[in-house]
Amino acid sequence: MNPLETRMKFRNQELTGTTSGLCEQYIQTNLVTLPKAYAFDFLLFCMRNPKPCPVVEVMEAGVTKPSTADADIRTDLPRYRIYRNGFFSEEVLDLNEVWQDDFVTFLIGCSFTFEQALLDGGIPLLHQDQNKVVPMFDTNIPLKEAGIFKGNMVVSMRAVPNHLVDQALKISHQFESSHGEPVHIGSPEQIGIDDIQQPDYGEAVTFDRDEMTPVFWACGVTPQNAALQAQPSIMITHAPGHMLITDEKDPNYS
Amino acid sequence: MNPLETRMKFRNQELTGTTSGLCEQYIQTNLVTLPKAYAFDFLLFCMRNPKPCPVVEVMEAGVTKPSTADADIRTDLPRYRIYRNGFFSEEVLDLNEVWQDDFVTFLIGCSFTFEQALLDGGIPLLHQDQNKVVPMFDTNIPLKEAGIFKGNMVVSMRAVPNHLVDQALKISHQFESSHGEPVHIGSPEQIGIDDIQQPDYGEAVTFDRDEMTPVFWACGVTPQNAALQAQPSIMITHAPGHMLITDEKDPNYS
Repeated sequence: MNPLETRMKFRNQELTGTTSGLCEQYIQTNLVTLPKAYAFDFLLFCMRNPKPCPVVEVMEAGVTKPSTADADIRTDLPRYRIYRNGFFSEEVLDLNEVWQDDFVTFLIGCSFTFEQALLDGGIPLLHQDQNKVVPMFDTNIPLKEAGIFKGNMVVSMRAVPNHLVDQALKISHQFESSHGEPVHIGSPEQIGIDDIQQPDYGEAVTFDRDEMTPVFWACGVTPQNAALQAQPSIMITHAPGHMLITDEKDPNYS
Repeated sequence: MNPLETRMKFRNQELTGTTSGLCEQYIQTNLVTLPKAYAFDFLLFCMRNPKPCPVVEVMEAGVTKPSTADADIRTDLPRYRIYRNGFFSEEVLDLNEVWQDDFVTFLIGCSFTFEQALLDGGIPLLHQDQNKVVPMFDTNIPLKEAGIFKGNMVVSMRAVPNHLVDQALKISHQFESSHGEPVHIGSPEQIGIDDIQQPDYGEAVTFDRDEMTPVFWACGVTPQNAALQAQPSIMITHAPGHMLITDEKDPNYS
């Protein structure tokens, strides 16, 4: 299925799972939707933290169609999360009930965009093999504040065979607007992760700690962590692992 | 004089002229100050038009000290312009009378930053030789809209000896966050400039049209043009040619 066909399955709620491994080579993005009153603070937060929050597109107040996809942002992701006053409120399959005309939407680069390149480079993706949502973790890596937004970085983890870690670095490095190279390699405890089998988002993946190295990439779930502290009246995001699939191929694939 | 000493002369209003040629090698910036209500639209305008509006720093609401200079933004530029409802209202030597706690300030890269590099590369600067404020022109080069902000690009013009045009390109290309390489070379009429001796900002500079080529760089006065259309209730800028001198050397000089 191409991106449009896949998004139609999400729109009709025939598919509601993770987008990892779907429409490989196409750019996938995280989503953050906020009332315009918070938009300046959030855009500045992204500019000051480009590693976890690389801005792919900003959709102005009330705009529902992105320029990077022939999509309706309110229905064409598989799952959304709604936060109210800083607390997770509910997970929904579309935004029809909650949409407001003053909503500004930020599309933020996603590491799923380079997963096909990792596979092409001979690097297995255990979360795909094990049918799991990629595991994600809160860390102790501090972010730069902007207005009401602050907090620590969230990372996604992929276990990479020891001899292929350099290769994974090189490949992801080229995908600058999709988080680029890893922020940490090898020692989860050094970035505040106590138990690699207890992710804060997504699902645990089993791997052999002697043969494989845990590699951590900055993650677009980071704003969801920042929202807990900022407490905007309402903030909508993709559900972790459930992205917008755009109609644009990443230039690294062309 | 170093940047701090120079800014003190501006603060005490002992100096009130152009900053071209002062504190060479230090980064100079354009200034745009707006009420926070307009800040999201303007930041997005800058992101969508990075050539004329490369953001060096954003100072959040009420902040008066930039991180790039031990300065007070209200007093340490030689001259400011105030626009009200889209019309030029007055030119002032400080902002003490008009400052509001909700003012957000944007510092935007400036071509003065690479003027010393041009001189070092053997390229004469006629506006400095002739004691003029660099000539600047409105053009027909359209910008990408963001919220209320739209309009055409403003450019600065330097006449370069014909055989040194390539050299000027190469040098300025390295100064990416200070407008970088030129946006046009040679034919002012092609970008909507009717009379090279009638600049819209700054002062006319005389040069030999046979020996020298007019070279046009994107200019941080562009937001002043956009303000005419956007009509924010109040918007403050540096006076054309009268910049903030920061305490940071451009890395190309180190």
